[in-house]
Amino acid sequence: MNPPDLRTIYRHYLDCLNRRDWTSLGQFVADDVQHNGRPLGVSGYREMLERDVREIPDLHFDIELLTIEAPFVASRLRFDCTPSHAFLGLPVGGKRITFAENVFYRFRGEKIAQVWSVIDKAEIEAQLS
Amino acid sequence: MNPPDLRTIYRHYLDCLNRRDWTSLGQFVADDVQHNGRPLGVSGYREMLERDVREIPDLHFDIELLTIEAPFVASRLRFDCTPSHAFLGLPVGGKRITFAENVFYRFRGEKIAQVWSVIDKAEIEAQLS
Repeated sequence: MNPPDLRTIYRHYLDCLNRRDWTSLGQFVADDVQHNGRPLGVSGYREMLERDVREIPDLHFDIELLTIEAPFVASRLRFDCTPSHAFLGLPVGGKRITFAENVFYRFRGEKIAQVWSVIDKAEIEAQLS
Repeated sequence: MNPPDLRTIYRHYLDCLNRRDWTSLGQFVADDVQHNGRPLGVSGYREMLERDVREIPDLHFDIELLTIEAPFVASRLRFDCTPSHAFLGLPVGGKRITFAENVFYRFRGEKIAQVWSVIDKAEIEAQLS
């Protein structure tokens, strides 16, 4: 059996998020997925994403850098969006901001089992000052 | 010619930082290195590191995750340290904190040419509240 093509799977995962196709999330995310040390599971992961999209209706996941060495995918995502309210505790409601997220994923087979995400909060703060 | 062994080079780069061997920095960092979009060059890069170490004397670079796909190295670093004064504008002086940095490097040959770094500021803030 060939190893899974993590590049293609990861791109399909982001497509899934960008079209808000939450019912397909379980194709990409393991039942026992952990996010920044929290054992969310698929349902908790979905809730997190649904909340993100509620707070940032025009949230769109764009890859700036992608570095893959199985079972790891490291991605730098670039967001250009307009949160409707506060975000990360910052008063950005109604303001268009751009920021990066540097994030690592550990895959188990074809699914994301663990996520280590850091959002560039300082970059957002600089746009508010 | 074999491609450079980025895993070994990167580990030697961190060793160089951990022993504060600033005179060897040019072995690992390109003359025209950029850091988060700023064209620092080796001298500016060295100044940045020297300032970090002045503000955090016990700063030590430890790899938590490493994902390599040439010419990129993606690293999650874990710091466990005691800043002497404020850090990232946060009042952490004298307090022991732990935080992650998710960082991408683009190598040119055997040297780091570009760096995209994000420090988990929210993780530090959570330790202050």
